[in-house]
Amino acid sequence: MDYAPRPDDSLFLIDTVLGAPAQLAALPAFADSADAALMRQVLEEAGRFVGEVVAPLNRTGDEIGCRFDNGAVVSPPGFKEAYQAFWQAGWPALSAAVEDGGQGLPAVLDAVLYEWLSGANHGFTMAPGLLHGAYECLRHHGSEELKARYLSKIATGEWLATMALTEAHAGSDLGRVRTRATPQADGSVLLSGSKIFISGGEHDLTDNIVHLVLCRLPDAPEGPKGLSLVLAPKVLEDGTRNAIHCERIEEKMGLHGSPTCVLRFDEARGWLVGEAGKGLNAMFVMMNAARLHVALQGIGTLDAAWQKAHAYAQERQQMRVPGATGAEPSLIAEHPAIARILDTQRAWIDGGRLIAYRTGLQLDLARHAPEPKLRERAQRWCALVTPILKAACTQQGFEGASACLQVFGGHGYVREWGVEQHVRDVRVAMIYEGTNEIQAIDLLVRKVLPDGGAALSAVLLELRDELDASREADADAQRRLAQLRYLGTSVAMAAQANPRLPYEVADDFLRVTMLGLMAWAWARIEAHSGTDDARWQAPAAAFRRHVLPEFEMRLGLVKRAAEGVLGAHAQPPGAALARQ
Amino acid sequence: MDYAPRPDDSLFLIDTVLGAPAQLAALPAFADSADAALMRQVLEEAGRFVGEVVAPLNRTGDEIGCRFDNGAVVSPPGFKEAYQAFWQAGWPALSAAVEDGGQGLPAVLDAVLYEWLSGANHGFTMAPGLLHGAYECLRHHGSEELKARYLSKIATGEWLATMALTEAHAGSDLGRVRTRATPQADGSVLLSGSKIFISGGEHDLTDNIVHLVLCRLPDAPEGPKGLSLVLAPKVLEDGTRNAIHCERIEEKMGLHGSPTCVLRFDEARGWLVGEAGKGLNAMFVMMNAARLHVALQGIGTLDAAWQKAHAYAQERQQMRVPGATGAEPSLIAEHPAIARILDTQRAWIDGGRLIAYRTGLQLDLARHAPEPKLRERAQRWCALVTPILKAACTQQGFEGASACLQVFGGHGYVREWGVEQHVRDVRVAMIYEGTNEIQAIDLLVRKVLPDGGAALSAVLLELRDELDASREADADAQRRLAQLRYLGTSVAMAAQANPRLPYEVADDFLRVTMLGLMAWAWARIEAHSGTDDARWQAPAAAFRRHVLPEFEMRLGLVKRAAEGVLGAHAQPPGAALARQ
Repeated sequence: MDYAPRPDDSLFLIDTVLGAPAQLAALPAFADSADAALMRQVLEEAGRFVGEVVAPLNRTGDEIGCRFDNGAVVSPPGFKEAYQAFWQAGWPALSAAVEDGGQGLPAVLDAVLYEWLSGANHGFTMAPGLLHGAYECLRHHGSEELKARYLSKIATGEWLATMALTEAHAGSDLGRVRTRATPQADGSVLLSGSKIFISGGEHDLTDNIVHLVLCRLPDAPEGPKGLSLVLAPKVLEDGTRNAIHCERIEEKMGLHGSPTCVLRFDEARGWLVGEAGKGLNAMFVMMNAARLHVALQGIGTLDAAWQKAHAYAQERQQMRVPGATGAEPSLIAEHPAIARILDTQRAWIDGGRLIAYRTGLQLDLARHAPEPKLRERAQRWCALVTPILKAACTQQGFEGASACLQVFGGHGYVREWGVEQHVRDVRVAMIYEGTNEIQAIDLLVRKVLPDGGAALSAVLLELRDELDASREADADAQRRLAQLRYLGTSVAMAAQANPRLPYEVADDFLRVTMLGLMAWAWARIEAHSGTDDARWQAPAAAFRRHVLPEFEMRLGLVKRAAEGVLGAHAQPPGAALARQ
Repeated sequence: MDYAPRPDDSLFLIDTVLGAPAQLAALPAFADSADAALMRQVLEEAGRFVGEVVAPLNRTGDEIGCRFDNGAVVSPPGFKEAYQAFWQAGWPALSAAVEDGGQGLPAVLDAVLYEWLSGANHGFTMAPGLLHGAYECLRHHGSEELKARYLSKIATGEWLATMALTEAHAGSDLGRVRTRATPQADGSVLLSGSKIFISGGEHDLTDNIVHLVLCRLPDAPEGPKGLSLVLAPKVLEDGTRNAIHCERIEEKMGLHGSPTCVLRFDEARGWLVGEAGKGLNAMFVMMNAARLHVALQGIGTLDAAWQKAHAYAQERQQMRVPGATGAEPSLIAEHPAIARILDTQRAWIDGGRLIAYRTGLQLDLARHAPEPKLRERAQRWCALVTPILKAACTQQGFEGASACLQVFGGHGYVREWGVEQHVRDVRVAMIYEGTNEIQAIDLLVRKVLPDGGAALSAVLLELRDELDASREADADAQRRLAQLRYLGTSVAMAAQANPRLPYEVADDFLRVTMLGLMAWAWARIEAHSGTDDARWQAPAAAFRRHVLPEFEMRLGLVKRAAEGVLGAHAQPPGAALARQ
C-alpha cells in the first residue's frame, strides 16, 4: 500500500484558499508561468512521478538500506535509476532560475513536491533535499568562477550537494567547528578535519558530489565569527578524486535509504564561498527554504501514515460500535476512538499544509516582488513562521504517525503495513536543521523579542485582516491572534526583567503560536469549503474539539510565567491590543 | 551505558511514602516476610541481578535479535544462560505461593522487579512476563490433575508460558476467535487453528512451553460466551512434541529480543482450564497483574531512557546558557529546554511509580486481607486504577523516551547510545494487553458508568482522606479529586441520554483521572521529602509547571462534552461534591 499524492487536496489549498495564482501572476517573474492551469498540470505530473517512481522504493530503502563498502556507499536497489530519472525530468530545477538551467517556476510548487516526496520516500528525498539550499547559497555568495563550474550542475541536480557543518563536539554549537582551511597560492584552500552526520556525504547516485563545508581559516577568531564556507567537490575538474574520505555510515533508528556519513577531509581542495569569516551568513541564505522543507517532511510523512491508517480502518472490522444494529462487527473507522485519531491527524496535515504553502508563497514574494515593502513583509513572514512550522510539523509528524500506527493495533508494530517505518524515519526531522528546541529559541529570542514583539504583531495583524469577523470560526481565530499579540508584548517586557525567562517558555510560546496560526488556517479552509463537504468538515470539527483546546493551556503557561516576573496586574503597553 | 536499578528511589516510595511494610505486616500471609529490612534486602539483590546479568544483554537482543530457523527460534546470545540463572535464583517465583514452589513474598516487590527488568531489557522481560498470569489462571481454574503436572513448573519459571489469544481476524475482538477444540474420550481436547502475535510462542530458553489457548468447543455459541481456555504444552508428558508449529516470527519495529510468533495448532493435545464457555473469565484473573506489569514496562523504559539522557546532559557541553560567565560552553543539563525535558520525565516516572507501587500493594491486599471489606476495597482500586496506569504509563513511556532521545540531538537518532532502542521497544506496550483505547473504554464504560461513578468516587475519597489540607499541594490535589468525582457523575448522567458520548470522551477521561492521581502522588512525595531535597523537588516543580496544566484542559474537554448533552446548567446530583 504505497503513498499516493492527491493533487486536488493541495490545489484546493493553494488555489481556492490561498489564491496563489493571482498573487504570483502579479509578479513579473511569473507572469507567464503561474496560472492555475499550469500549476495544476505541473503538480499532476509531479504526483504521477512521485507515486509511480519514488513511492514503490520506500520499503526497499528501509529494509536493504545503504551499504558501506570500503569507503564507498551503495544505494538501495532502484535508487540510482530513480534519481537519474528525477533530475533528468527537471524536478530539482523546478524553482531554479532559467538562466541557471532551472524552470523558473514558483517555490510554492517546490514545497508541494517536497512534501509529496517525503510522504513517498523520506530516505530518497534526503538526496535532493539540500540541493536547493546549496543552489541559493552558491548563487548569492559564490564567485563567478565557482558559479561557472558548479551552479548549473547543482541547479539541475545533475550533481548532488551536502552541507558539511556538524563535528563530533559541535552539534547545535557551530561556533566550535574546528575544520581548518589553509589558503594556497592559486586561490584555493586545503581542508583538514572531520565532519559527522553528513547526509549524502558519499553515494553512487550522481557522478559528483559538491560539499559546502563550514571551516576556519588560519588566525580566524574563535566562535561563529571565525567561520568560513568552502566548496569542495568529491571529483576535481581534472577527474581525480579529492581527498575526502567517507569513514563510515551511521546505524540509525530509520531513514536507512539515506547514508549519514562521517567524512574526513585530508587536505582536500576547496574554494571559499563568500567572504572569509562570513560562513554562517552564507549558510543562512538557505535556512528558511531548508527548514520549510523539513516541516513538509513532517506533513508528508504524517499524510502517508494517515493514508495507510485510513485505508486500513475502512476495511478492518472489530466489535460493534455503540448503537450499531445487526450481528456484523463494525468497521474500526466507525469507532469513536479511531475516528478521532484519523480526523485529528487530518486536521494537523491540512492546517499545517496551508501555513506551509503560504510560507512557500511568501518565499516567492520575498524573492520576486517588485516593491521592497512587499519583499520585506514576505521576509518577515518567513523569518517568523518558518521555525514555528519546522518544530510543530516535525513533532506532529512523529506523534501523529505513531497515532496512525495505533489504528492498526499489533499489525502497526510489525513491518507488514509499513506504518512503523514512517514513525522511525520522521523522528530525525525533530533534530536536524536545528533541533526543535533551537527553533523555539530562534523564534522567541532572535525574532520576537528584539523589536518587542512588533514583527510578530504585524504578521498576526496581516492574518487578522484576512478573516471575516461575521463568521464564527473567523471571529474566534481573530480573538486568539489578538491574545498572541498581547502575549508577545508581555514576554518581551518580562524578558527585560528576567533574561532567562524566554528560554524557559520558548517551547510553549512556539506551540501556542502554531495553534493560533492553525485557527486562522481552519477558519479559512471552512470559509472556502461547503458546510456539507465531509472531506473538510470532519477535520475542521476535530480541530476545534481536540486540537484547539491546547491553545488556552499553552497560553496560560506562558502568561503565568510572564506575570510571575511582571506581577499579575502589570499592563504592558500592548494590553489594549487584546481587546481590539 | 547500561541501565542500573536504583533501589533507594523505589524504597523511598514504597517504604516512606506508602508505608507498605506496616500495611503488609498486618496481613497474616506476610507476617514474617514483609518488614522493611527484608524488602530492602530482596530489592537490592534484585537490583544487582537485573543490573549485572540482564541489562548488559539489551543491545545484543536488539541487534542480533531472535532468529527463526525452520520452525525453531534461536534466542539472542546470552539470553538462555541469563534466563536459566534468573529462574534458578527464584525471581519468577517471588510472589507465588510457598506450596507451589514460590517464595510467598508481596506482589509489590514483583512490581518493582518487573519495572527494573523492563528498563534493563524489555525483550528479555517478555519471556517471564506472562508467567505470573498463567500461574494465577491455572491456580484458580485448573483441575487438580493439571495443577499437579504444570503449576509448580510455571510458578518457578522452569517452564515458560504464553497466552495464545489473538487470531488474524480477531485482535481486540476476541469474541471472534475460531480455533477449535475437539473433545476426546480421555478427557483431553485436540486443538486446530492459527494464532498470531504470540510472544514467546517458541524459543530455546526452557525445555517446555505451556500455552494457554483461547478456543471454541463444538456447538459453542458465537461471541465471547462461546470461548474456552485450553492448556497445551509444547512437549507432552511422554516427551513427544505436541502438534504446535511456529510458522514464522514477525519483523517488528523493536523488541527484537522477544520472538513474536505465528503458531499453528494441528490437532494439538490440550486440556480445558476452567469451565467450557468460561475462557474469558479464566483469563481475566490474570488481567490486572498483567496490565500493571505493562504499565511498569512504560515506567521502566522511561527511566532507562532518562538515565542515559541525564548522564549525557551532565557531560555534553554546547553553547552558553543565558547569564553564564566565562568562555566555556555550558553543560546542556543547564539549558532550560533540556532541564525541562529531564525534570518533566522524572515527574512522570516517580509519580507513575508511586501509583503503580500502590496498585501492587492493593493486589496483595486484594489477595490476602482477612477482612472481606478490605479485599473488596483493594479490588475496587485495582479494577479502576489498572487501566489508567496501563494507558497513561505506556504512552508516557513512548513519548518520554522520545523526549529523552531529543536530549542527545543527532546522537540520539543513531544506535551509539541505545536510547533510540527504548523508543522502538516500548511502542508496542501501547498496543498489547488491550490497546490504550480499549483501556479507556474499560475504565469509563465498564468500571465507572455502571454504578453512576460511585466506585470511582470511593477511590478518590480514599485518596482525599490521605491528604493533609493544611499543605498547599495537598489542598490543590484535594480540589482536583473533587472535580474528578463530579466529572464521573456528570458523564454517567450524560451517558444515559447519549450512549455514544462515553466512547467519545473515554481517552480524555482516563487522562484527566491519571493527572489527578499524579497530583495526589506528588503531594505525598513532597510531604515526605525535605524541601531542600533536590532529587524530589526538581521533578515536583516540573510536575506543577509542565504536567499538571493538562488537567484543566482535559477536564474542560470532558465537561463540555457532558454539558453539551445535559445542558450547561444541569446540576447532576453529585454537584455538591465539587464544593466539598
